[in-house]
Amino acid sequence: MPELRRDPIIGRWVIIATERAKRPDQFSVKNEEEALREGEKCPFCEGNEALTPPEIFAFRKPGSKPNGPGWDVRVIPSNNPLFIVEGDLDRRGKGMYDLMNARGAHEVVIDTPRHFNEKGIPEEQITKAIQAMIGRLQDLERDHRIRYVLAFKNHGKAAGGGRLVHSHSQLMGTPVTPKRVKEELAGTKKYFNYKERCIFCDIIKQECDEGRRVIAQSGNFVAIAPFASRFPFETWILPIRHNCDCYRTRREDVPDLARILYQVFNRLSATLGDFPYNMIVHTAPFRNYRKKGYWETIEEDYHWHMEIMPMLTRVAGFEWGSGFYINPVPPEDACAFLKEVVKGS
Amino acid sequence: MPELRRDPIIGRWVIIATERAKRPDQFSVKNEEEALREGEKCPFCEGNEALTPPEIFAFRKPGSKPNGPGWDVRVIPSNNPLFIVEGDLDRRGKGMYDLMNARGAHEVVIDTPRHFNEKGIPEEQITKAIQAMIGRLQDLERDHRIRYVLAFKNHGKAAGGGRLVHSHSQLMGTPVTPKRVKEELAGTKKYFNYKERCIFCDIIKQECDEGRRVIAQSGNFVAIAPFASRFPFETWILPIRHNCDCYRTRREDVPDLARILYQVFNRLSATLGDFPYNMIVHTAPFRNYRKKGYWETIEEDYHWHMEIMPMLTRVAGFEWGSGFYINPVPPEDACAFLKEVVKGS
Repeated sequence: MPELRRDPIIGRWVIIATERAKRPDQFSVKNEEEALREGEKCPFCEGNEALTPPEIFAFRKPGSKPNGPGWDVRVIPSNNPLFIVEGDLDRRGKGMYDLMNARGAHEVVIDTPRHFNEKGIPEEQITKAIQAMIGRLQDLERDHRIRYVLAFKNHGKAAGGGRLVHSHSQLMGTPVTPKRVKEELAGTKKYFNYKERCIFCDIIKQECDEGRRVIAQSGNFVAIAPFASRFPFETWILPIRHNCDCYRTRREDVPDLARILYQVFNRLSATLGDFPYNMIVHTAPFRNYRKKGYWETIEEDYHWHMEIMPMLTRVAGFEWGSGFYINPVPPEDACAFLKEVVKGS
Repeated sequence: MPELRRDPIIGRWVIIATERAKRPDQFSVKNEEEALREGEKCPFCEGNEALTPPEIFAFRKPGSKPNGPGWDVRVIPSNNPLFIVEGDLDRRGKGMYDLMNARGAHEVVIDTPRHFNEKGIPEEQITKAIQAMIGRLQDLERDHRIRYVLAFKNHGKAAGGGRLVHSHSQLMGTPVTPKRVKEELAGTKKYFNYKERCIFCDIIKQECDEGRRVIAQSGNFVAIAPFASRFPFETWILPIRHNCDCYRTRREDVPDLARILYQVFNRLSATLGDFPYNMIVHTAPFRNYRKKGYWETIEEDYHWHMEIMPMLTRVAGFEWGSGFYINPVPPEDACAFLKEVVKGS
């Protein structure tokens, strides 16, 4: 089982994924595996269900059978999981160090049965993929040993996208709240204590008033180029109506979320081509497992959102060593490019 | 002037480097500039001094003149600085956002006059490069507007190494203490408050007792594969004798530091070939500019060190979104590989 080790100085967790261990000569960045070998079948395509572990969930056409064709969205366990459903957490010490087993969940959401969508995945298909994801989060919330589920998508080599290009997202259920989320929780709480308002609601207000960094709007959702964008063309999507849990999005709002995602990716692709990116969802941690206290105001002070991070520049030593980021494209310029490209087309 | 913008939620600073701004079509990761174009001269080679800005400092042979040949180590201002020496910081608000000018310093230390060193840079040359760097830090400390100097080195494309392969390091003098360093300071202080000991001293003690993650030792310095290594073959170099400021290293200890660096890179290259890496120095912030208080125990609780991060795997959405890292090589295995490779040669 993969092992979670805690950096004793700053409390950062590292997954030592021994099952993926490689010998040093396998590490050449140049020799990365190509997408699919010739003649190799894509395990995420409709008809190739036998190439994946049995499905956890699927939206299926009437009459179709599990693990066969006839689905719209399919959720499967990861073939190479970093977090394992079975076993104990076994949080323990080793001298001054802390470690535990990587007890949790690692699932793959196959967004579409089609290997390639020339004009991007259609809105109705995105709606179904989001609904499947929401369903999985609601289910995973019942496992009290899971504290957080991180939903993310890696696309393209430069973004660690792996060899399978068929559109898919991942859900990582972790036994601790991730450090980055904890930092956001601490920041939003501090602001709430001071202002008695949600910081994200205030950001949305200022951005909508100012307009220079608003990329798109759709019903209850807005897409902005954040003021302190770390990456060129970084884009955040936020619900305008305050909500801390992404999986409590109202059913009638899901098509609006799908529409803004479609629009944003449409604009990004028109500007940047087939660009590598990471997309992540930041939502509040599950709160089933603990008593009130620290979490008392979380429903008022936290606000779920998505972050799309195009990987066009490389992160180097200065960023690693400092936590500073260097961004050569001001978000106002990025936003202007993204608006222009669709106006012109 | 580049602008520093603060993320309002978690307080992360981003440098919006408008001088480096590019149009979207210049961003294709594939079209990165190749090292040197044919016939192009390397500005860091001896004899090409006219291709760089005038030097700030150099170790020179007797009789040689500034900005001409005859040097061992040469320090110049960056051609494309992210932090600028002139001007005001002008810390200000913009609605709910915070920003300031990137007032600071950005220097380049050319480690060697030779473009290529087949067997790595010799120990005596590394000694001189370290001494030059120490001298620069001592000088920059006198500028009370600089709170921190981050020394780092990027090598290879995958590590953001840029187009100049001639060995060089960078010094970035920043007007705020970087977030990553602040996190370490907070962690070490917490440990010190609890144990009344330096956490790094305790780590060194446990590692030397256990031995499984000790890669090399030289005089007052030890190289270890950290227990919670984020990256395969991550290596930290620490002074065994407690010291919070890298630039207060005793003159007689510098050759030992050069030796362990030489040994570590020798082993890493023998194992990984010409591998991309980032190397950073974490040292205590300058303390001239503030009163006691928070900094009172820093000389006891903080411990300077170097982190070498080979960039063999790609950091993807999960890492960005969570602050978790995935490492497929347990540090114990990495350490064994590194020890074996030299035994066998």
